[in-house]
Amino acid sequence: MLVVMRSDATANQIEHVLTVIRGQGLTPHPLPGATRTAIGMTGNTSSVDKGSFEVLPGVEEAIRVTKPYKLASREMKRDDTTIRTNVGEIGSKTFTVIAGPCSVETEKIIVETAEHLMSKGVRYLRAGAFKPRTSPYAFQGMGLEGLKILQKAREKTGIAIVTELMDVEHAAAVEDASDIIQIGTRNMQNYSLLKRVGLCRKPVLLKRGMSATLEEWLMAAEYILAGGNYDVILCERGVRTFSDHSRNTLDLSVIPPVKAVSHLPIFVDPSHGTGKRNHVPPMALASLAAGADGILVEAHPDPDKAVSDAAQTIDFVVLDKLLEQLQQMAGLLGRKMS
Amino acid sequence: MLVVMRSDATANQIEHVLTVIRGQGLTPHPLPGATRTAIGMTGNTSSVDKGSFEVLPGVEEAIRVTKPYKLASREMKRDDTTIRTNVGEIGSKTFTVIAGPCSVETEKIIVETAEHLMSKGVRYLRAGAFKPRTSPYAFQGMGLEGLKILQKAREKTGIAIVTELMDVEHAAAVEDASDIIQIGTRNMQNYSLLKRVGLCRKPVLLKRGMSATLEEWLMAAEYILAGGNYDVILCERGVRTFSDHSRNTLDLSVIPPVKAVSHLPIFVDPSHGTGKRNHVPPMALASLAAGADGILVEAHPDPDKAVSDAAQTIDFVVLDKLLEQLQQMAGLLGRKMS
Amino acid sequence: MLVVMRSDATANQIEHVLTVIRGQGLTPHPLPGATRTAIGMTGNTSSVDKGSFEVLPGVEEAIRVTKPYKLASREMKRDDTTIRTNVGEIGSKTFTVIAGPCSVETEKIIVETAEHLMSKGVRYLRAGAFKPRTSPYAFQGMGLEGLKILQKAREKTGIAIVTELMDVEHAAAVEDASDIIQIGTRNMQNYSLLKRVGLCRKPVLLKRGMSATLEEWLMAAEYILAGGNYDVILCERGVRTFSDHSRNTLDLSVIPPVKAVSHLPIFVDPSHGTGKRNHVPPMALASLAAGADGILVEAHPDPDKAVSDAAQTIDFVVLDKLLEQLQQMAGLLGRKMS
Amino acid sequence: MLVVMRSDATANQIEHVLTVIRGQGLTPHPLPGATRTAIGMTGNTSSVDKGSFEVLPGVEEAIRVTKPYKLASREMKRDDTTIRTNVGEIGSKTFTVIAGPCSVETEKIIVETAEHLMSKGVRYLRAGAFKPRTSPYAFQGMGLEGLKILQKAREKTGIAIVTELMDVEHAAAVEDASDIIQIGTRNMQNYSLLKRVGLCRKPVLLKRGMSATLEEWLMAAEYILAGGNYDVILCERGVRTFSDHSRNTLDLSVIPPVKAVSHLPIFVDPSHGTGKRNHVPPMALASLAAGADGILVEAHPDPDKAVSDAAQTIDFVVLDKLLEQLQQMAGLLGRKMS
Repeated sequence: MLVVMRSDATANQIEHVLTVIRGQGLTPHPLPGATRTAIGMTGNTSSVDKGSFEVLPGVEEAIRVTKPYKLASREMKRDDTTIRTNVGEIGSKTFTVIAGPCSVETEKIIVETAEHLMSKGVRYLRAGAFKPRTSPYAFQGMGLEGLKILQKAREKTGIAIVTELMDVEHAAAVEDASDIIQIGTRNMQNYSLLKRVGLCRKPVLLKRGMSATLEEWLMAAEYILAGGNYDVILCERGVRTFSDHSRNTLDLSVIPPVKAVSHLPIFVDPSHGTGKRNHVPPMALASLAAGADGILVEAHPDPDKAVSDAAQTIDFVVLDKLLEQLQQMAGLLGRKMS
Repeated sequence: MLVVMRSDATANQIEHVLTVIRGQGLTPHPLPGATRTAIGMTGNTSSVDKGSFEVLPGVEEAIRVTKPYKLASREMKRDDTTIRTNVGEIGSKTFTVIAGPCSVETEKIIVETAEHLMSKGVRYLRAGAFKPRTSPYAFQGMGLEGLKILQKAREKTGIAIVTELMDVEHAAAVEDASDIIQIGTRNMQNYSLLKRVGLCRKPVLLKRGMSATLEEWLMAAEYILAGGNYDVILCERGVRTFSDHSRNTLDLSVIPPVKAVSHLPIFVDPSHGTGKRNHVPPMALASLAAGADGILVEAHPDPDKAVSDAAQTIDFVVLDKLLEQLQQMAGLLGRKMS
Repeated sequence: MLVVMRSDATANQIEHVLTVIRGQGLTPHPLPGATRTAIGMTGNTSSVDKGSFEVLPGVEEAIRVTKPYKLASREMKRDDTTIRTNVGEIGSKTFTVIAGPCSVETEKIIVETAEHLMSKGVRYLRAGAFKPRTSPYAFQGMGLEGLKILQKAREKTGIAIVTELMDVEHAAAVEDASDIIQIGTRNMQNYSLLKRVGLCRKPVLLKRGMSATLEEWLMAAEYILAGGNYDVILCERGVRTFSDHSRNTLDLSVIPPVKAVSHLPIFVDPSHGTGKRNHVPPMALASLAAGADGILVEAHPDPDKAVSDAAQTIDFVVLDKLLEQLQQMAGLLGRKMS
Repeated sequence: MLVVMRSDATANQIEHVLTVIRGQGLTPHPLPGATRTAIGMTGNTSSVDKGSFEVLPGVEEAIRVTKPYKLASREMKRDDTTIRTNVGEIGSKTFTVIAGPCSVETEKIIVETAEHLMSKGVRYLRAGAFKPRTSPYAFQGMGLEGLKILQKAREKTGIAIVTELMDVEHAAAVEDASDIIQIGTRNMQNYSLLKRVGLCRKPVLLKRGMSATLEEWLMAAEYILAGGNYDVILCERGVRTFSDHSRNTLDLSVIPPVKAVSHLPIFVDPSHGTGKRNHVPPMALASLAAGADGILVEAHPDPDKAVSDAAQTIDFVVLDKLLEQLQQMAGLLGRKMS
């Protein structure tokens, strides 16, 4: 923490800040400058509140120097995290595709999708049994019935299941039914839920909140890591901006900074990011090129009949073509498709 | 819903759209124009998916014409909603102040605050027993112990209690301990929680999500109303923008549009909106002038010692001055302080 | 400037940073901490580039501590700036109303408006002769012909003229014809134009850019001040955010921070800020309550027939009612209407 | 245009809207619905003002159905635009790299850079002689002297020159000295300048404004096209959002929508988009993968000594490596490097 004094701060005001810093068990380091004094402090500043200094007389502002995330940071763990699931590894040496329909609708569609994916080398099926919907009058998902269908697809094809958990109440059921637990964008700061999945023994795919900064996102991951679950996959899915040409603004530029400050794998969801099926393949390729470790993509045997997210869901012809292009590009970039 | 065809759409493509519309039990109305055809549709379109038309061949875009919220809309209920609590009325004829510390810290501070507020005519005390904190390492609130302290203040002074509910698990306890249940900004789209408070018999103060549009906010209110709880108070608390001069961008300009489309009361939280205590009084006055029905303001007997949100919390001297100014301005605008 | 080293920075890397700082004629102050070293620097850092430190090996980030604006800052000039025009004073003791149609359309409308304004005590008429329009096919303003009409209104009624300058080419003509030169939001960072009005001898009303931070806005003012023109009025007119309930998001919360760091007067334009005439009066009142020094409001004898901005323009009945309310509220807040 | 009536609109109010539409020479088409009436209109609606309907009694909102851009739209010109310069073609079959230092500093650096670029097959040199700087106290570019240096590099090496024009005053000089005229982000809506370059006979690279929607950006291009200059290249360079992990938020997701609605080529500037040199190569590759037709990248023989933008400028070693990767990826995607 650095406390910057106003240019007209008095010697008494500066002295008072030094006293307050010492009172918190820290060591102050005054830095007299040409126009003003700044005061650095050393010691364990992680619990120090920036605001508590900004209200002291003569203080212009307090600037936080160290980052508040610990377990999620690359300083704590230098090497990229590799996550092992029943069907393979997820991390910086591979490029993982997770595909499937927005919602679990019928066993037929789920099994058909699982079989198609496995035949193309895609080993992760995504589909929601519990659906967060903007309208209380819209289809809310099949619930526990949907989880059973997902488990049938797993038994029949060996595919791994990725599905969303929306509340603490269903945590055990979703953990049982899935290989990766998804936390949705609207729940990124649902701390009760984050604490609960910190106790799960399955990897967690944590979508970025619609207006979360990188730091807030890593702090949400920190909640899960601090609970003892170290297998967190970050997933960019578009943020909320003024831009109205797409459903959200897919922020691929967050990938290099994530890689710089954290060891966690990062995926991209180009379906929610764009909201339009025609724009999914170019943004999927761009995600790989930008350094993402995988994608989460909505695919359905007959997208026009999908009960939700029809407009952003691709069919299997488009998916197969995309998988081929990803395969070639991954080779170029020294990654193995998984 | 209006479906706009591309300028080069064929007669067959237009015919196909008409067929799809009829297949959904709706009546299509083709509107041939100078450069393109648009197709209106009538019937119950509330469950029709915009995206399902945008993927049809020859379609440029589909435009939703009706609003998805029903119970929250002024069309459904023309008159402003007035909410009755044990201590008075909340609505468009009054201006209600809710004040108190960010967190419940000690019984002494809570009771002292309650007594001061009651002596100044403020009949609602806010303080959090459960605290959503960005960091897992920060103080997470006193929990059930904090609720007990709030109840003591209520018994002792008769003040009404406003406190936050973070999860379904504690719904009954918070409902018992409070007169108004607060849903925080990070939980505005926590649909499991919204459904639960739809079953509560206490008014709900619903904070706007950090990047929620007006429509999304009213849809969140709709979840509560649809559950049978009609006493919802909206609360603007600042949104996430590029602006970095304040903690959030307090969007007072949302007040007139809320009043135009909804009958629900709207409050403003100038403390979280600005993040700086010096900026709280002018923004509180501006909220009243812009047409808000009340404010939620952080106040503490000794803000510099508050365990959270110290920088944005005002002391009683500032609060008393502000109450006086609000009183005068409310008179000017034909409102009664409550 | 503060340079924060990575936690694994070597002694050599730290030493290299110290050398680079000294090489720029500054004095480095190393601050060894628990996990990392930060290095403060003193001397004249105004021209030092943050980026040039961030690329040095072992550096985590560089943080700018001092603000880049000088003449616009309250540290340079402690007292509020008062601007004197032919018709009165603008500043923190008064509340100034500038009103009129979006564009100059006909002499009749302009003179009628000027006469009405003067009869109500409003002494500033705004109307655009040069209009920045999103579409090249839309009405672009009457140009020099429009300036002549404005001058006739001034001669006839004594009203002061506020009109927009869009390019260097017309600077002399606009300076002659106006009492206050307006720089529009799209030109806030048109530096050639800012330098030119720095040479003018008329006050400049500088609208905030659609996505300008407070610092960028003050730096734009700094261009004008540095040119020798000290009479700059800032004008908030709404910023670009995700919010879609209004044309722009009127950022009233910028007013207290402007007052804290700068001595310049600040106005608000609630017409462009909201885009809807019904929402103009409440936001005008809120601007005054939040501490603004004046407003710029679009008014027209028959708004439905206005050639531009019809939807956000109020008529004289609404204007007169608003002026009355502003008068009362100004009295309450210790300001004099001007 | 579609006018949506309120659910309680009277028959008289509906009739009045029909009359107003007819009064504008258009044909109204009333669409009575379950809860409300909508009114379509046909005829030439391009000059009709949305706001003029929204103020009529009984009207809920007016919705624009057709797009305001004409010459920039794919409906007007179905095939992708290919731009021919002295050194080659720019368009959707090629991938063009424009590289060079932020500013013209010395002849030595410019010539050295030009020679290096030509040796690697890069035929466009970018460097600013006129520099838009946030601070009036910062280096403002070498001006006309800088243009002379650029011309020497062109004569000596045959490289094509891309340089920024900031004002009408220097239009002729910049047109002479350059092969492509750059309009910067801060001038995207400087309409006087856009009209001027509409008269130039050199291609114009039009950077997206910091908070410009796709429609506003295309309308800015429309100004140039309407002036008779059909060679416009769009250039995404990052937009202004709440995200603080990079200098701007590079919006690669705009590329597919641009390609869908317009025939103009689109480039990306990953240097300004990210603000950090380490993040430039991944975002450059992602631009190509997302469908961009070229990039504009800051490169310098010794970036740490660059007088501006040092932090985001790459050196020749990094550039050469990037060119190699782009070459391979372009081959994969069926494009030729140019």
